[in-house]
Amino acid sequence: MNSPSAATANIGVVGLAVMGSNLARNLASREGNTVAIFNRSPEKTDALVAEHPEANFVATKSYAEFAAALQKPRAALIMVQAGKGTDAVIDELVKVFEPGDIIVDGGNALFTDTIRREAAVRATGINFVGAGISGGEEGALNGPSIMPGGSDESWVTLGPILKSIAAIAEGEPCVTHVGHDGAGHFVKMIHNGIEYADMQLIAEAYDLIRRGTGKTPAEIADIFAEWNRGELESYLIEITAEVLRQVDAETGKPLVDVILDQAGSKGTGVWTVQTALDLGIPVSGIAEAVFARSLSSKPLQRAAAGNLPGPEVHPVADADAFIDDVRQALYASKIVAYSQGFDAIVAGAEQYGWNIQKGEIAKIWRGGCIIRASFLNRITESYADDPGLVSLITAPFFRGVVTRTHDAWRRVVAAAAVSGIPAPAFSSSLSYYDGLRAERLPAALVQGQRDFFGAHTYQRVDKEGTFHTLWSGDRSEVSATDSH
Amino acid sequence: MNSPSAATANIGVVGLAVMGSNLARNLASREGNTVAIFNRSPEKTDALVAEHPEANFVATKSYAEFAAALQKPRAALIMVQAGKGTDAVIDELVKVFEPGDIIVDGGNALFTDTIRREAAVRATGINFVGAGISGGEEGALNGPSIMPGGSDESWVTLGPILKSIAAIAEGEPCVTHVGHDGAGHFVKMIHNGIEYADMQLIAEAYDLIRRGTGKTPAEIADIFAEWNRGELESYLIEITAEVLRQVDAETGKPLVDVILDQAGSKGTGVWTVQTALDLGIPVSGIAEAVFARSLSSKPLQRAAAGNLPGPEVHPVADADAFIDDVRQALYASKIVAYSQGFDAIVAGAEQYGWNIQKGEIAKIWRGGCIIRASFLNRITESYADDPGLVSLITAPFFRGVVTRTHDAWRRVVAAAAVSGIPAPAFSSSLSYYDGLRAERLPAALVQGQRDFFGAHTYQRVDKEGTFHTLWSGDRSEVSATDSH
Repeated sequence: MNSPSAATANIGVVGLAVMGSNLARNLASREGNTVAIFNRSPEKTDALVAEHPEANFVATKSYAEFAAALQKPRAALIMVQAGKGTDAVIDELVKVFEPGDIIVDGGNALFTDTIRREAAVRATGINFVGAGISGGEEGALNGPSIMPGGSDESWVTLGPILKSIAAIAEGEPCVTHVGHDGAGHFVKMIHNGIEYADMQLIAEAYDLIRRGTGKTPAEIADIFAEWNRGELESYLIEITAEVLRQVDAETGKPLVDVILDQAGSKGTGVWTVQTALDLGIPVSGIAEAVFARSLSSKPLQRAAAGNLPGPEVHPVADADAFIDDVRQALYASKIVAYSQGFDAIVAGAEQYGWNIQKGEIAKIWRGGCIIRASFLNRITESYADDPGLVSLITAPFFRGVVTRTHDAWRRVVAAAAVSGIPAPAFSSSLSYYDGLRAERLPAALVQGQRDFFGAHTYQRVDKEGTFHTLWSGDRSEVSATDSH
Repeated sequence: MNSPSAATANIGVVGLAVMGSNLARNLASREGNTVAIFNRSPEKTDALVAEHPEANFVATKSYAEFAAALQKPRAALIMVQAGKGTDAVIDELVKVFEPGDIIVDGGNALFTDTIRREAAVRATGINFVGAGISGGEEGALNGPSIMPGGSDESWVTLGPILKSIAAIAEGEPCVTHVGHDGAGHFVKMIHNGIEYADMQLIAEAYDLIRRGTGKTPAEIADIFAEWNRGELESYLIEITAEVLRQVDAETGKPLVDVILDQAGSKGTGVWTVQTALDLGIPVSGIAEAVFARSLSSKPLQRAAAGNLPGPEVHPVADADAFIDDVRQALYASKIVAYSQGFDAIVAGAEQYGWNIQKGEIAKIWRGGCIIRASFLNRITESYADDPGLVSLITAPFFRGVVTRTHDAWRRVVAAAAVSGIPAPAFSSSLSYYDGLRAERLPAALVQGQRDFFGAHTYQRVDKEGTFHTLWSGDRSEVSATDSH
C-alpha cells in the first residue's frame, strides 16, 4: 500500500461495490498501474485494502485526498449507482480536479444523460468520459469489454490504462475510443439490446425443441454444447448449456423447471427500443425480446389466459431434422438482431455526430462481454470490405448464411404458429427479413388510408411531388407539393 | 355576427387552421352556442367570418378582446401547432383569463406535457384540460370523438358544450370525462396506437390476398366491402375498399400501385410504444406496425436487400378458403391490438392515478374516430360484465372469437412464413396470444442465464424467496433474499 500524500496513482476508482472493487483489483493487477480508491463509507475502502494487501492501492478517505493521490492529468473511474449517485460524485470531483483531468462514468448511464454531463463538465475544462463496461462482475475482474466515449484528449491518457484491463480477443484488447460524448454509452446500450434479442432467441429455440421433440433439459444442454462447437459458438450458447444441465439439489428436477418463469430486466432493453423508435430504426427482434420479458412478468393476465384455446402439440416427425432447422433459424434470426442493432448504431452516429467505426465495435465485442461470439469477426470483415454497407444482412457473408438457412427458418416459424408455441423473436425476425427484401410493401395502402382520412398526401412511383386525392370530392388527384 | 364588446360567447376557439376552423364551425352550428374566435393573423379570422356569415361567431382581434367576449367561466379551445405554439397561447390566455376559467388544448400533445401544463396552469386557479380529438378534418366539422382530461370542475362547463359537437353513436355523444390532467391525451395516444396496428393488419391482409391469390386491387376492394358487412365492420375496413377501388386517372392503374410504398407517421405511434415500454406493457402489435412504417421508409436498405433470397410465391390452392382464413386472422389479431391497448390504458391509469372507465372509452370510440368499429360495443359489454377484467382477450365474447378463429390465424401466419410474405403484425399478435396462454414460458431459461452471468437471482416455483446459484463456485444454491 502507498501513502495518499504523494501523487503516485495513475488511475482512481470511486465507488467500491462489486463492480467498482473488481475493476480496481483488475487495474491494480496490471503492470505499471497504481490505483487510488475512494468510497463514501470508508469501511469498504479499508476492507478492500485488507483483503488485497498485495494490490497497488492508495486508500483515500476524502475527495481531496483522492485528488492529491493522482498524477496529473488525473483520471478517475466512477462506479456508483446510475442517476443521482453519479451526479453527486461528479459534483465532488469537479471541486477537487483541474482542467485537463478526466472523470470516467463506468456505469450504465442513459447516453443522453452522458451527453448532458459531458457538456456540463467540459465547461469546467475537465474531461468527462461515459464508458460502457460489459462483462458483469467476472468481466470487471478479469477483463471486460469497454466502450468509452468522450474527447480525443482524454483517450490519450485513458487508452493505455483501459487497454491494460480489457479482455483480450485474438491478441487485441477489447476497447476502442467509440466516439465523442455519449457514443460509448450509446453503443453499450445497443449491445445490451442485442443481448436481449439473443437471449430471447435462445429461449425460443430451447422451448421449441423441448415442446416439439420432448427432449429433456439435459439432452437439450448437449444440443447447445454441440452448437457451441459450430458457427453459433458464443458465450450465451455456452452458458445456456450450463444452465440447462444444472439439476436442483433440493428437488432433483432440472433447475430450469424450478426457476419461476418471469424474466426481469434492468431497463437497457427498454432504452434501446425507445431510442430506436426516436431514430426511426426498426429493432423488432429486440422489441419482441423486451415484450416477452414483460409478458412473462404478468402473472394475473397469464392466469386469466391460461385456458384460452390452442392446438395440441404433437412431437415432430423427425426430431433431428427439426433441431437442425431450429439451429439454422437461430442463426438467421441472430443475424437480424445484429443487423438491426448496427442500423441503430449508424442512425445514432448520424443523429449525434459520432464517427463510429462499426467494424471496431464488432471487434471489441469479441471478448469480455455477454454477446461475445465467434461470428463477430464476420461483422468486422463485412465493414472492412464495404465501409458503406447499408445493412449488415446484405453483406456477402451474411447473405450467404440466410441463403442457406431461410428455408429452415420458415419451417420453424410455421411450425411454431401451427403448434401454438410462442416464438415472437423468430417470427418477427423473419417478417423483418421478408419486409426488407420485398419489392413492394403494402405501406402503399397504409399511405392511401392516411390520405383518405387525414389528407396526409402521398408520393407517386412515377414522378416527383406530393399528391392528394379529393376523396370526399370528385376523387381527382391534386398536387399537394405547394402546401407542404 | 356578434360584437366582441359584450360577453356573449359560451366557448372560444384559438387557432383557425383547418382543424380549428372546422371545430369552430361545428360549435357555432349547434343550438345555444356562440363562438368567440381568434387567430394570430387576423386575416384567417376575417376569412372564416366572411365565408360563414350564418355562423354564431364573435370575431376578436386580441387576447383581451377574446377574453372579454366570453361568458364566465370562460372556456377556450386551443387548436394550434403542438409544442411551443401551445405553450405560447397558454401564456397569453393565462394573462387575460381568471380563476375558474378553462383552457382546453385540443391538439395531439404528449400526455406528459399535458400533465406539466395542467399543473402549471392550475397554480393560477385556471383550469387546464388536455382533450384528445379524433376524426380528422371531417370529424372536426361534423362530429369527432372527444377525449377530455382535466378537473371535474371544468367538465361541468365543458361537458354540455363538447356533447353538443361530438359524434353520436347509437344515440350517445362520443365524449366522456376520461380522467384528470393528462388522461385524455393519454387515451387519445393509445387510440392512435391501436389505429397503427389496425391499419398494418389490414395492409398485411391485403398483401397476403393479393400475393397469395393473384386477385386485383378492385377484386380485393369487393372483399373488404363484403367484410364490412360482417363482424369486421369498421371505418378502416370501409375506406380500405374505397382506396383499393380507386383507379389512377393518369395511368389507368390501381391507385394503390401508383402510390409510393413508404408510409409516413406523425409520431403518436412511437409515443404509444415508448410509453408502453415505460409501463412494462407488451404492445407488440402496435410496435410491429410502427416498425413496418419505418422499414418502408428506408429506400437505401430496401434496395440493397432487394436480391436477398426468398421462396417462390405460388397461388394458394383454394383462394376462397384462404381469404376467409385471412379474415379470421385479421379479426383475431385486431382483438390482440385492442387487448394490448387497453392493457396500456389500465397500466397508465394506475401509474398516473386516473380513474378511467374502460367501457366508456370503448363507447366514445364507436363514432367520429378513425378506429370506430361495431365490435367496440363488445368491449363495453365485456367491461360492464366484469369491471375487473385483467385482459380483454380473456372476456367470454373475445375468448369465443379466438376459439373459432385461431386455427385460421395459425394457417395464415404459417403460410406467410413459408411464402415469404411479410406479416409482422399477424405473426406478432399470434406469438403474443400463444405466450399469454402458455402454461410455462422459456423466461425461466432467460432468468437462469441472467443469474449465471450477472448474479441477477431468480425466484422458485415451489417456495418464497430469491435465490442464486453459485455458478462459478460449487454450483450450490444460496438464498439471496437478504441482499436484495
